Amino acid sequence: MHFELIHHPDCPHSRFIRLALQEYHFSVDLTVERVWERRKEFLILNPAGTLPVLLADGQPPIPDAAIIAEYLVEILGDDIRATRLLPREPVERIEVRRQMSWFNDRFFAEVTRPLTEERYRRLMPIEAGGNASPNYQLIRNAGEAVRSYLEYIDGIVHHDGWLAGNRITYADLAAAAHLSVVGDIDEATWLETPAAWTWYGRLRSRPSFRALETPSWKGFSNAGLARQ
Amino acid sequence: MHFELIHHPDCPHSRFIRLALQEYHFSVDLTVERVWERRKEFLILNPAGTLPVLLADGQPPIPDAAIIAEYLVEILGDDIRATRLLPREPVERIEVRRQMSWFNDRFFAEVTRPLTEERYRRLMPIEAGGNASPNYQLIRNAGEAVRSYLEYIDGIVHHDGWLAGNRITYADLAAAAHLSVVGDIDEATWLETPAAWTWYGRLRSRPSFRALETPSWKGFSNAGLARQ
Repeated sequence: MHFELIHHPDCPHSRFIRLALQEYHFSVDLTVERVWERRKEFLILNPAGTLPVLLADGQPPIPDAAIIAEYLVEILGDDIRATRLLPREPVERIEVRRQMSWFNDRFFAEVTRPLTEERYRRLMPIEAGGNASPNYQLIRNAGEAVRSYLEYIDGIVHHDGWLAGNRITYADLAAAAHLSVVGDIDEATWLETPAAWTWYGRLRSRPSFRALETPSWKGFSNAGLARQ
Repeated sequence: MHFELIHHPDCPHSRFIRLALQEYHFSVDLTVERVWERRKEFLILNPAGTLPVLLADGQPPIPDAAIIAEYLVEILGDDIRATRLLPREPVERIEVRRQMSWFNDRFFAEVTRPLTEERYRRLMPIEAGGNASPNYQLIRNAGEAVRSYLEYIDGIVHHDGWLAGNRITYADLAAAAHLSVVGDIDEATWLETPAAWTWYGRLRSRPSFRALETPSWKGFSNAGLARQ
């Protein structure tokens, strides 16, 4: 099975699916889409206008990270890889899906969506809705939220090393994908959450993670977060 | 398998899962939760604080309508009912899940969440964040959005009778559950979307749908919608 993934390097949901594809050793061609341009051709593929979208030969376009994640497990079927990121037992799947949604939906709404929007607003010309002065209150709120999520992760991975059960799952990949676009998290926060720090380090050293390019705003310092 | 469902009669996601449980002929006890009270005991069951939550003997609490929907299919396994609302083929599942999310996430964000919040705000005492004068602009926007969703449904069900494929699926139940809490939709809108009207009528005449009690604001007329 050969895939094309329509994605954006800065999009946390795209990064989550790229990690999953790599963990499964699927080969994939990447195509960048700038969703804010709302191109007609793209909206035909995914009327919701969101990333990522997975294209596979002879299949309808597959939108939405959560839907793609389920699809990948299903096409693997009895392949040994199928249980790698989503366990086979319904009861174990509950926690993986709950955590996956915790990051793809909740962390996104509270942290990665406002941060991303704020970053793009700074980069856009004013006449196109851009704003040269970032909303620091919003960035600070997101920073506070990041800290509480890291405390949450710290409390869980302390016990068994991964977010949902005793091995890596979609939950860990989703969490790491979103954290990877937050930008620099200050040392003081990490010092308070040492188990989360170790967990994130283990994820970042995986080949799947190292294959992700750095988000385009890397080096574009996250002043609001670092300054707290 | 015997279930308890923590729900609210006005919550569209709860109504969606109640329809699914009835369509599968599962027996279920219902417990009402008022999530806005943010009761500690409830937040332990579901830290996200959302409805519904499904409780089954010896299982962890199952939160989130989409996660519950997947779980029900999985525990049915090879039971003939398993394919009733979610087909077995991965490629057919894409469209069911896409539409299910289209209503549970998108329609919710644009229509049922703002309408619900506005209704509760009117019913709450002012000192608790209530506001006796509803935001008519917000209600009008939601009404406009309902119309565009009905046109969307009208264009799809015209061809094959149901939203995703040639039989009823989770997609139809999710759409109908959300529409059922919108309140009265004016006749002019329905006249413009006759296929959607027929589709909705077929859903409303199903035993699963008739078993839902009327939302508590029924009769509490949706002036903003009706007046357009």
